[in-house]
Amino acid sequence: MSADRLGLILLAHGSRDARWREPFDSLAQKVAGRLPDVAVRVSFLKELEPDIYATADDLTRSGVTRITVVPVFLAMGGHSANDFPVMAGRLCAAHPDVKFRWEEVIGSWEEVIGAMAGAIADRADGGDIED
Amino acid sequence: MSADRLGLILLAHGSRDARWREPFDSLAQKVAGRLPDVAVRVSFLKELEPDIYATADDLTRSGVTRITVVPVFLAMGGHSANDFPVMAGRLCAAHPDVKFRWEEVIGSWEEVIGAMAGAIADRADGGDIED
Repeated sequence: MSADRLGLILLAHGSRDARWREPFDSLAQKVAGRLPDVAVRVSFLKELEPDIYATADDLTRSGVTRITVVPVFLAMGGHSANDFPVMAGRLCAAHPDVKFRWEEVIGSWEEVIGAMAGAIADRADGGDIED
Repeated sequence: MSADRLGLILLAHGSRDARWREPFDSLAQKVAGRLPDVAVRVSFLKELEPDIYATADDLTRSGVTRITVVPVFLAMGGHSANDFPVMAGRLCAAHPDVKFRWEEVIGSWEEVIGAMAGAIADRADGGDIED
């Protein structure tokens, strides 16, 4: 047990299409249901709000002392290689008393790739794809 | 049982970063392992090859008569709303004897959102995120 309060930021790309955020909101709701003691938030790189800086401000104001960032991207690309380290540096400088941890992009997690493969294969086995 | 031979195209966005494709190749390999009778291919919208038209040509030349397209995108955005119908029309016109089926973007599949939420929560429960 730790007295630290944990925040979890699901970082998504963003889009001009307002409907684009729906799967991420749904994901955040499901994660929050599984982790009732964790403050779960969605943030966006572009087009949609809030950005990760506003979210980090909000979390720290509410007493969060450790923040884990899960980039909800399918693959490592320009954003993850170039933007994420810059963002991590800015967050660290803005909140020197908060411990940040960055996960790998979720699409590189073996268990997620396995689950997506299983979902595709299950739909095929069930005839949804094959028939 | 059907005499039709099925092809499955995992359609991804693409990136200038060559490493970007790795999760999609890994996904295709896992799906192919689960569906040994299905011709599984990865295709890209931009930057990486092959595109979906070259892949469809290749599949039909090898005797595939039905092709299911699974857009491996996390959310519905500009590409799915605008580009996919255009691509579907071009594919249909180029291969009038082939039956195409387009799935929803994989990030909107309830079972995939559930699996991602479970993966995040499991890492947290295991202390990978919380500690």
